[in-house]
Amino acid sequence: MPQPLGRRLLAEFLGTGLLVAIVVGSGIAAADLSPDDVGLQLLENSMATVFGLAVLILMLGPVSGAHFNPVVTVADWFLSRRDPEGFSAAHIGPYVVAQCVGAIAGGLLANAMFGVGTSFSEHERASGGHLLGEVVATAGLVLLIFALVRSDRVALAAPAVGAYIGAAYWFTSSTSFANPAVSLGRMFSDTFAGIAPSSVPAFVVAQIVGAAIGVALVLALYPFPSPHAHQGEPHA
Amino acid sequence: MPQPLGRRLLAEFLGTGLLVAIVVGSGIAAADLSPDDVGLQLLENSMATVFGLAVLILMLGPVSGAHFNPVVTVADWFLSRRDPEGFSAAHIGPYVVAQCVGAIAGGLLANAMFGVGTSFSEHERASGGHLLGEVVATAGLVLLIFALVRSDRVALAAPAVGAYIGAAYWFTSSTSFANPAVSLGRMFSDTFAGIAPSSVPAFVVAQIVGAAIGVALVLALYPFPSPHAHQGEPHA
Amino acid sequence: MPQPLGRRLLAEFLGTGLLVAIVVGSGIAAADLSPDDVGLQLLENSMATVFGLAVLILMLGPVSGAHFNPVVTVADWFLSRRDPEGFSAAHIGPYVVAQCVGAIAGGLLANAMFGVGTSFSEHERASGGHLLGEVVATAGLVLLIFALVRSDRVALAAPAVGAYIGAAYWFTSSTSFANPAVSLGRMFSDTFAGIAPSSVPAFVVAQIVGAAIGVALVLALYPFPSPHAHQGEPHA
Amino acid sequence: MPQPLGRRLLAEFLGTGLLVAIVVGSGIAAADLSPDDVGLQLLENSMATVFGLAVLILMLGPVSGAHFNPVVTVADWFLSRRDPEGFSAAHIGPYVVAQCVGAIAGGLLANAMFGVGTSFSEHERASGGHLLGEVVATAGLVLLIFALVRSDRVALAAPAVGAYIGAAYWFTSSTSFANPAVSLGRMFSDTFAGIAPSSVPAFVVAQIVGAAIGVALVLALYPFPSPHAHQGEPHA
Repeated sequence: MPQPLGRRLLAEFLGTGLLVAIVVGSGIAAADLSPDDVGLQLLENSMATVFGLAVLILMLGPVSGAHFNPVVTVADWFLSRRDPEGFSAAHIGPYVVAQCVGAIAGGLLANAMFGVGTSFSEHERASGGHLLGEVVATAGLVLLIFALVRSDRVALAAPAVGAYIGAAYWFTSSTSFANPAVSLGRMFSDTFAGIAPSSVPAFVVAQIVGAAIGVALVLALYPFPSPHAHQGEPHA
Repeated sequence: MPQPLGRRLLAEFLGTGLLVAIVVGSGIAAADLSPDDVGLQLLENSMATVFGLAVLILMLGPVSGAHFNPVVTVADWFLSRRDPEGFSAAHIGPYVVAQCVGAIAGGLLANAMFGVGTSFSEHERASGGHLLGEVVATAGLVLLIFALVRSDRVALAAPAVGAYIGAAYWFTSSTSFANPAVSLGRMFSDTFAGIAPSSVPAFVVAQIVGAAIGVALVLALYPFPSPHAHQGEPHA
Repeated sequence: MPQPLGRRLLAEFLGTGLLVAIVVGSGIAAADLSPDDVGLQLLENSMATVFGLAVLILMLGPVSGAHFNPVVTVADWFLSRRDPEGFSAAHIGPYVVAQCVGAIAGGLLANAMFGVGTSFSEHERASGGHLLGEVVATAGLVLLIFALVRSDRVALAAPAVGAYIGAAYWFTSSTSFANPAVSLGRMFSDTFAGIAPSSVPAFVVAQIVGAAIGVALVLALYPFPSPHAHQGEPHA
Repeated sequence: MPQPLGRRLLAEFLGTGLLVAIVVGSGIAAADLSPDDVGLQLLENSMATVFGLAVLILMLGPVSGAHFNPVVTVADWFLSRRDPEGFSAAHIGPYVVAQCVGAIAGGLLANAMFGVGTSFSEHERASGGHLLGEVVATAGLVLLIFALVRSDRVALAAPAVGAYIGAAYWFTSSTSFANPAVSLGRMFSDTFAGIAPSSVPAFVVAQIVGAAIGVALVLALYPFPSPHAHQGEPHA
């Protein structure tokens, strides 16, 4: 049975906030402790994120679905819109607000833990290759999540999404933000994982394009909402 | 059915001891073998801890619950105190003693394996940012454990808690002690993972504050002791 | 029930393509960010591949079986050829074409994301030790996959195959291509993970030899098509 | 139902051989590719072993039980000797021979893949601290395996034993051989993971002592052969 909306929004706030705190905080630690090799920094940063993101999904999934990402929220609504138990359009706005506020709070928390003053990042990231990277990263993320949903394997989302980000940190040139709320939160720390505010709009556009491609791939590869749907059984 | 208390205390002694031996021992190896990059040392130390902690929980969980941590023991009692099969208040003292004695023994064992003399650590760690890190780390740990308990997924605790610590080593500025007994044991090795005795009281206070916040979040996000409880079914 | 062939071919195209994009892309990032230590580059490259390959199998396995590899496709047909629900010989050709076209597209995608011009790799890899490495790597891969199939544990293929490649990157001298389609795709990037076209034929021969050894080991160790087969029960 | 002995011995030969090939081969690659940091070499070597050992257990466990280790074979016999379906004393000898022959073959295979001539290792390892490390490492390994057996969680042995070795590489000063057959095989490669023949006898004695301590801990913590045994139900 569905959880009350307030509890779900608390989970989305906490989860997105801790996700940004993990990405930004581990980035600060990595840059500080491994000053001589940027690749090693990214390895430390990405391993912390693999572990942390998987744990957040486990910890909060039963409460809110563990979206932590506006494009996942919108895709969830879109792909379940004909299901009476699907994600309600009326909840998109509150979810996205909780995610964005949480993301900013998470950036500030990381700064506070590491004694770093809060200022906007000056790390420009919006090149052509990086934007293509964001399209690929977001398409893959959306396809992965809803492939699991539509094949009755949501219980695997935690390790799978963690592992996905661990690969996408490295194989996309943008290090895979793949999340508009997290992109927003990462503006607020002028450290390893930061992104300049001027780069965020292009990143968000690329993420939306990627999410649309991901939804199209879900519909092509997993046309039925659940494995039971086309057999006349109730949705799982 | 519950295990005899002596067997449970042996498990808590062994588990907390081996946890400290893993943290301290891998820290000695890392500092010795990777002298030029502190980040790489922490990566080696944290990966060994991820693997080792997960294994200890698997190995000893069926015997004692695999607390290995006084704040987890107290939180377990508090959150199950209305359940006749919950953790008994009378067992808190023995559990905490077994954990603390085990933690000290584990520090001594690591020193002996690596041929390091035992002396108190001189590594001062109690800064403001580090204490905030401990609050965050302990709150997250408690929330994770009891989120799993209250959603009938205790079988996932081993990889989840291992992964959590793997993230928290990096995203909290304190490298996430998050455990008063382990903090005590890590006083006894003047090596990579040590902590000066003078820093321990503040760390323990921060851990208690974090645990209280964690319990509050459990009550907010998972108000029912188990998924079955509010349906009138017996506790799992 | 089986999926339509077009959908399966799309999955094989996508999966093989993303696999090559992961291997090549993370190789470019690793070589760029960790210029001073080739081992660290390979660690970064191999961890990204462990995570990415596991995710691709999870994401696309229910659609096409997630072969992404011509020798796996042929072995699947061979080992299930007496099973009326086994892999059809008529599908081998289309699968292999989809894999090869996908692999080339994945190499081009990685080049595009990282702003690298496409040209043939000049990395000669075909030495005697490397070819022996490919034989071992491919034999192990085939044995692993069909050991899982024949013991009713296909659900473990994603983490198991990911982990296998993570080991084989390091313990075989060739870094474990173990896949003719991926070998083809990796010709098209003159970067860390590339392979010179002149080395590919010998690699493919070694992979075919390894696959044959792997099939022989499957027949020796798991002679029954499934655990139920010799008990007169229907195939799982 | 039990597998024929020949098939089981093939599995033990293959599994122990590939385990040594993984340890030795990845050690050669690591030392070659990361010449400047021994810790990084050990990280690469240990990650390859975590992945590879887990995979070997998955791949061969259903055939032979995936012992790959004489002390595990003897402990299995000892702990199941009152169970009519337990491990037969008559199989100890053949298992140990298959493991030892396999281990040597695996060392030779690694040398061949990397083009290294075969000669005895000159790496002396038998110091007091290292022997204590072997006692701890083997005790923990035996306790882990039979804790899983006696709590009906053998299906978790693959990731658990892999993870255990990943921790024990680092937290024991000896890097955790914990296996007489593997110690034997590692004599035959004068490379990163080798061990001088003169150190092997003391290592094996320490491993036997550790295994005995491990068995004692199993009996103390898990006194019943299986969770069902004390309820009058048949053994699982």
